[in-house]
Amino acid sequence: MNDRIADETELIQTYLAPLAAPGALGLNDDAAIIPIEPGCDLVVSTDPILAGVHFFPDDDPRDIAWKALAVNVSDLIAKGAQPIAYTMTLALPDAPLRSWMADFSAGLKEAQAAYRCGLIGGDTDRTSGSLAIGVSAFGTVPRDRFIKRNTARIGDHVFITGPIGDAALGLALRRNPRAFPEITSEAHRQTLLRRYFRPAPPLAAITMLRTYATAALDVSDGLVQDAARLARGAGAALAIPVAALPVSPAAECLLKASPGSIDSLLTGGDDYEVLFAVAPSLVSDMRAAAADIRQPIHELGVLSAGSGVSARDLSGKPLVIRAGGYDHFRRV
Amino acid sequence: MNDRIADETELIQTYLAPLAAPGALGLNDDAAIIPIEPGCDLVVSTDPILAGVHFFPDDDPRDIAWKALAVNVSDLIAKGAQPIAYTMTLALPDAPLRSWMADFSAGLKEAQAAYRCGLIGGDTDRTSGSLAIGVSAFGTVPRDRFIKRNTARIGDHVFITGPIGDAALGLALRRNPRAFPEITSEAHRQTLLRRYFRPAPPLAAITMLRTYATAALDVSDGLVQDAARLARGAGAALAIPVAALPVSPAAECLLKASPGSIDSLLTGGDDYEVLFAVAPSLVSDMRAAAADIRQPIHELGVLSAGSGVSARDLSGKPLVIRAGGYDHFRRV
Repeated sequence: MNDRIADETELIQTYLAPLAAPGALGLNDDAAIIPIEPGCDLVVSTDPILAGVHFFPDDDPRDIAWKALAVNVSDLIAKGAQPIAYTMTLALPDAPLRSWMADFSAGLKEAQAAYRCGLIGGDTDRTSGSLAIGVSAFGTVPRDRFIKRNTARIGDHVFITGPIGDAALGLALRRNPRAFPEITSEAHRQTLLRRYFRPAPPLAAITMLRTYATAALDVSDGLVQDAARLARGAGAALAIPVAALPVSPAAECLLKASPGSIDSLLTGGDDYEVLFAVAPSLVSDMRAAAADIRQPIHELGVLSAGSGVSARDLSGKPLVIRAGGYDHFRRV
Repeated sequence: MNDRIADETELIQTYLAPLAAPGALGLNDDAAIIPIEPGCDLVVSTDPILAGVHFFPDDDPRDIAWKALAVNVSDLIAKGAQPIAYTMTLALPDAPLRSWMADFSAGLKEAQAAYRCGLIGGDTDRTSGSLAIGVSAFGTVPRDRFIKRNTARIGDHVFITGPIGDAALGLALRRNPRAFPEITSEAHRQTLLRRYFRPAPPLAAITMLRTYATAALDVSDGLVQDAARLARGAGAALAIPVAALPVSPAAECLLKASPGSIDSLLTGGDDYEVLFAVAPSLVSDMRAAAADIRQPIHELGVLSAGSGVSARDLSGKPLVIRAGGYDHFRRV
């Protein structure tokens, strides 16, 4: 029995219409209305995810769907924008199996609930290539409160909202389940995989970021590369002491056994934490605000005169970082 | 000499940043701000175009770029929304040639100028599949003036803004330059090709549509299919007399020699004209408004009790229409 979806109408009405938000017109028109409160700016982020580039075609469709929305919400959060809605385009190599599509829409539903935004429109096409999911996510910030990436200043302290490198290790485990024999705990291995499959940008941090961040961006292309963007935008340098790097207990196991793997943690992509800068006079207030909402934050260093990002080991010597970070344009 | 683009930075800074609009932050941040006037609703349309589905990989990159924006602007116009900005994602099978990218950005520049909107953000990726261009276009309508597709009423007159079927004939000529020997005029053949390569949704009609249309949508999947959507939304039927169909002089040549080709005109996609309904009491005012702006309009018939769309030949007999229209999901 061929249990594939028959046509675009079934795909939309059965699997996507239940996800529709106000403004979506039941996904039954050619365009959608994005509801915006007065006094707000509308912010858009658009990062497609492609099979073979950002996920594996046989990944769990719930995870693929989650990631498609989460990577876009991540940009909104880093800009201080509250997610409100998203559009999605699907380029499908084949009519999907109904079971696949049911799981995919279940994953979207989970991500929508977690990030409090609904589907308002999109398009589906057949493609001769591989599966591609194009989400554009919309959020609102109070007028003129968008947090840019290039407005930090020398002297600002730099923070990150969570541990780095877990997703890169998770990707390596996804490619080779026998990787990292040093990590013996199965729970740790599962945590790393989950950090790769289910990026969890910190929705709760939005107000704190709007209030205190002088600049921010999400860490999607590796800490070194994204920190370099923040530093360059400030016309500054950042030296990160390795001891300051937030790493998970799972990554800690690996680092103890193989100190050289610090490279992968510093340059691996897909963390989807927020990197942000705070003026020195506001650091203690920001710490208090973060504590109030139980948002973990980790200080990485202070922006100083100069340029570039370096990491320093425990003795203060610069670490040589082998890879520059992840560039989806240069296919790896 | 390898004259391919080196990396994402070159692609963005050299070829796309010159197209950036206010709010784009120089295409140098992770998200963009969409400027909205108070009292307006924001409207979004998102229709990707894919090589092998919506265009041929070796089409002129200026035409590909034009089409990527025009098909999205078309939806905005049909909804009564003034285009203001767009985002674009590029999935590239290879690093593009610099000459290709220069032509592509030149085509975008032309389309931006024609439709008065600028690039505000996007993303580029390498793909193992074929070239895919994902535009989301944004427009504004005065609050609550979005024109839906399902709000026409029985008794409304149905109009279209231009001739039908030219683009479908142009596509057939693109596939086979010897098609339609009946069309002997080279100028006519070029016109058909241009209608396929350069869809030209009627920007000037926006205000007239907002003022008079009870419902509207763009004709992208063939007149029969899109008229059926309009009629279904009204809970009505539409019988189109063939004599009322607006056809270009080029299509007229074909029809004279091969009357059966009326099918291709009625069901062929890619017209990107606007189909709209007007209450009977306002038809003459609407005609005057259209004449004022020199916007061609053609009446197709009146919505009547019943369901479905039919075409009737000169003797009043129903035409049998062989194909139901174009569904990009069912690949052809």
